[in-house]
Amino acid sequence: MGPGPSDVHPRVLAATAQPTIGHLDPEFVGLMDDIKSLMRYAFQTSNSLTLPLSAPGSAAMEAAFANLIEPGDKVVVCINGVFGNRMAENVRRMGGELVTVEDDWGTQVDPQKLKEALQQHPDTKVVGFVHAETSTGVCSDVKTLCAVAKEAGCLTIVDSVTGLGGVELRVDDWQVDVAYSGSQKCLSCPPGISLITYSDAAAARVKARNSAVQSWFLDLSLLMAYWDGDGARTYHHTAPVNAMYGLHEALLMLHEEGLEHAWQRHRDMHNLLADGLGELGLNMVVDASYRLPQLNVVAAPDGINEADVRKHLLSHYNLEIGAGLGVFAGKVWRIGLMGYAARKENVLLCVNALASALK
Amino acid sequence: MGPGPSDVHPRVLAATAQPTIGHLDPEFVGLMDDIKSLMRYAFQTSNSLTLPLSAPGSAAMEAAFANLIEPGDKVVVCINGVFGNRMAENVRRMGGELVTVEDDWGTQVDPQKLKEALQQHPDTKVVGFVHAETSTGVCSDVKTLCAVAKEAGCLTIVDSVTGLGGVELRVDDWQVDVAYSGSQKCLSCPPGISLITYSDAAAARVKARNSAVQSWFLDLSLLMAYWDGDGARTYHHTAPVNAMYGLHEALLMLHEEGLEHAWQRHRDMHNLLADGLGELGLNMVVDASYRLPQLNVVAAPDGINEADVRKHLLSHYNLEIGAGLGVFAGKVWRIGLMGYAARKENVLLCVNALASALK
Repeated sequence: MGPGPSDVHPRVLAATAQPTIGHLDPEFVGLMDDIKSLMRYAFQTSNSLTLPLSAPGSAAMEAAFANLIEPGDKVVVCINGVFGNRMAENVRRMGGELVTVEDDWGTQVDPQKLKEALQQHPDTKVVGFVHAETSTGVCSDVKTLCAVAKEAGCLTIVDSVTGLGGVELRVDDWQVDVAYSGSQKCLSCPPGISLITYSDAAAARVKARNSAVQSWFLDLSLLMAYWDGDGARTYHHTAPVNAMYGLHEALLMLHEEGLEHAWQRHRDMHNLLADGLGELGLNMVVDASYRLPQLNVVAAPDGINEADVRKHLLSHYNLEIGAGLGVFAGKVWRIGLMGYAARKENVLLCVNALASALK
Repeated sequence: MGPGPSDVHPRVLAATAQPTIGHLDPEFVGLMDDIKSLMRYAFQTSNSLTLPLSAPGSAAMEAAFANLIEPGDKVVVCINGVFGNRMAENVRRMGGELVTVEDDWGTQVDPQKLKEALQQHPDTKVVGFVHAETSTGVCSDVKTLCAVAKEAGCLTIVDSVTGLGGVELRVDDWQVDVAYSGSQKCLSCPPGISLITYSDAAAARVKARNSAVQSWFLDLSLLMAYWDGDGARTYHHTAPVNAMYGLHEALLMLHEEGLEHAWQRHRDMHNLLADGLGELGLNMVVDASYRLPQLNVVAAPDGINEADVRKHLLSHYNLEIGAGLGVFAGKVWRIGLMGYAARKENVLLCVNALASALK
């Protein structure tokens, strides 16, 4: 019950242990097509350019920016936690002209500040921000932020590593150009792969590039020659076949449950947890109106060594909860209720284990 | 029995299906240390900078070059197949000054040509070449090539994606500065992760860089803050925990068998296959003196549609063998005898299935 990797469903673990077949085997190619369709459902998009990447969410972030921006392009990154900072670092390394919009940790990205930044920098080409900030438990308003960016003629990149499957995300309706996520959060797959989708406008930008993408491994045009449904599959790299079995199973389970039901389950479990923690006198750090149900940031009480409590939970209850990152280090716990982990028995275990540790 | 992914050992599959734990869990940190030790044995090195990467071999290639070269650095890449070409493409995208040394497909990299190139380009900083060329089945002479490069004061990058565990590789004795491999060849893990090791000289070059590594995800200094055994582990990205269980098991099995025994087993199975194919009148493409035992490139007889034969094997015998790549497309089969797949029963199945298909 940390900030991810989340508990993996037994169906997913069993799927990943199936015998490995070739990455060009017709059976596997069929699975690839299924995965793309199921991903479109999860992202609520009809984007044809929708595919998994053979590396974790941090590589998906790099793929998002590396394919879209060219050296000298102006990029606005909104920062309200660790992963916004990581976006900024990516833009710097790629030679983009970086403009940052900063908000306090534990608060949302402010659409008004983004608007002002875009007025000051009318030549901005891309806006990036984090939907579900794993470091703070904050859910930002993707729909409004994208509307602001679109009004200024920008493409939008949205990090939903912790969001997808846990809270509402509607890529097409909300005008998201590139969204990406990870396998190990609300999809409850083992960590190691990621998911990405590009709008037609984003795909057109990639096609119109003047310079080659710096990363051969993450070059979208090469990746699509392998993942594209039309015609022959051109070998790019050897796909992580077993991880794809797991992703397929997890996406199938999300489809079986239904997205809205999954979102509701995360809210319900969050409410149960928040009530239980409240009875222990523990406070949630993030305002209820923009709290992520799947990532609960809880203030450690004064006079308590938060690391000792985590150690106690791990050694006595085999239960992992997360530490704070950055400005939250030493001050909070991060309790994940992601995917398969968002179950009543986990909530009760966690509340009772914390009660015992704080006695 | 294609060119990889190879057949995964049941012990490895079972290991990957164990419940996922946190990437900062003390249990997992212990596993990470074991993996590094076992990797040092497999690579025959004492390099402290030895770690797995959370992405396939192509990303390891990118990590090797991206960390070592800076824009404008002169790099000699020796090309005798697909993966040498991929190295060259990586250097181009990173802004290195590329010099290529080309040899025919199906032949070794020629040390004499490398020597001449380095005489013409005395300011070369890095030499890269492929140990075990998966596209042609050729094993190049790592020891001699590295000696030539070292004499010219260059660092060496060696691609042993298909080599490690299947043929002799001695990183320290042979003066290899950076070597990398993949999980899905002679280690018989599922595809998706890779292994890399850096000599002290290579590590010093990375530390002395003037510019940031273009890729945040593959930046060695950041990765080492997570993988380094000393002090606290700094979160970089979420490690692919289950894939690491599998890698650990596979490296343990290689250690149990012993490297020399594993190399001998690959040679023995290759000889058995070559004899069997010879009796069918089929010819190996590569000269016996520098043939890879684990990747057998076999000429398709005149008048035979090689793709039909592969389809026949897959549908009638559930047996996958590989097609030719590049200049070999349509002309050869590539038969893998890698890791767990290098067993007598596989060799017999393959020979008999080919006999039936060619009747």
